Amino acid sequence: MRPRGDHNAGAGGANAPLLDVEGFTSMAEPEHPKHARPDHEILDLIQRRWSPRAFDPSRDVPDTDLGRLFEAARWAPSSGNEQPWRFVVTTRRETPEAFEELARSMTARNQAWALAAPVLMLVAVRTTIEKSGSENQHAWYDAGQAVAFLTLQATELGLSLRQMAGFDHARARAACRIPELFEPVVLIVVGYAGDPGGLTVPIHRETEVQPRVRRPVGDFVYWGRFPA
Amino acid sequence: MRPRGDHNAGAGGANAPLLDVEGFTSMAEPEHPKHARPDHEILDLIQRRWSPRAFDPSRDVPDTDLGRLFEAARWAPSSGNEQPWRFVVTTRRETPEAFEELARSMTARNQAWALAAPVLMLVAVRTTIEKSGSENQHAWYDAGQAVAFLTLQATELGLSLRQMAGFDHARARAACRIPELFEPVVLIVVGYAGDPGGLTVPIHRETEVQPRVRRPVGDFVYWGRFPA
Repeated sequence: MRPRGDHNAGAGGANAPLLDVEGFTSMAEPEHPKHARPDHEILDLIQRRWSPRAFDPSRDVPDTDLGRLFEAARWAPSSGNEQPWRFVVTTRRETPEAFEELARSMTARNQAWALAAPVLMLVAVRTTIEKSGSENQHAWYDAGQAVAFLTLQATELGLSLRQMAGFDHARARAACRIPELFEPVVLIVVGYAGDPGGLTVPIHRETEVQPRVRRPVGDFVYWGRFPA
Repeated sequence: MRPRGDHNAGAGGANAPLLDVEGFTSMAEPEHPKHARPDHEILDLIQRRWSPRAFDPSRDVPDTDLGRLFEAARWAPSSGNEQPWRFVVTTRRETPEAFEELARSMTARNQAWALAAPVLMLVAVRTTIEKSGSENQHAWYDAGQAVAFLTLQATELGLSLRQMAGFDHARARAACRIPELFEPVVLIVVGYAGDPGGLTVPIHRETEVQPRVRRPVGDFVYWGRFPA
């Protein structure tokens, strides 16, 4: 990776994509269509992680694995070590009423695939700093970090998860009795990836086997300053 | 992990800490005081990750490693696959003016430790959905996920990083020419962990070798609903 040209010459200076691929030859074809095709070598867990819609309805998540997911989230960094994240966990087997009440906060389109999974959880954040009561601007950001750690831990355990923003926040708040000081952030479906053929919405079946796409590194990493 | 009692009995039901430690005996003493002491077995990378203030001023970050950091961030999940994160990268060696201009946006207290590191970057997010122009409520959250992936990739490479919220957002925006549609989120210092004895602020030297603390899992994970 090298800056190209003089990026400090002025606001109008060229700021072309910066990160050349150096010393990294393309990896072998991925084992699964959803595995990343990275331009630089990355952690195997990151390469293999993806977010299915098809879950295996016959397999529950072992309790010990749930414990490991939250332990992974626990050790994420956060601004001022506030740890603003909270998780409300429901399972179809153990807390079926809570599971169904939370599930009803999803859009119909999300319910169409998500109800096959054994675990459904709501992530909420405390939006104020505990000591001062002032706004915690980084609460959502830090929850993202915690869930990312949880996600890679899930990948390690052979579990899959898919997050969704498409749910009725007020309804989820009511279902999980989220106090005023907290805000719902995402719903997360956890389980074992299942057969895409079991998905009822055609576009869901199709996207389940299409390669994942991302903008190239050079399109979101800038040297010194934003491109003009 | 088991729900204790009937958590669906009513809003006032007991909601004691839920995640028992099962099948996990305490790990051996960590090699470093900053390594996590988890109650459930987690990824080694998560256990070993921590955020130093002391960086080795003599070691630059190889270009290939910078590429791998951003590649890891690239494959993070995001709402609607918006990938709202952007990184403006400065290094003391290659873009010294940009590095210094960005560094001056930090509080004096952060400058006291951060200037020893070779790489300083600003994370910014696009706060609107590209296609619709509507607000992206999950932009900060998704940036947190991307940085968490980057962070574990850094740990894998033997690199350390520390994020900070303590900086002047307007000044950082000006230094990095962040357009209006984007918001600065965090500054990240990247390099190799260094000698805590080199830190000039006494409390920084002290915290550098104190164990990391986190609330127990049972204090942020609830079964079915928030505790009343």
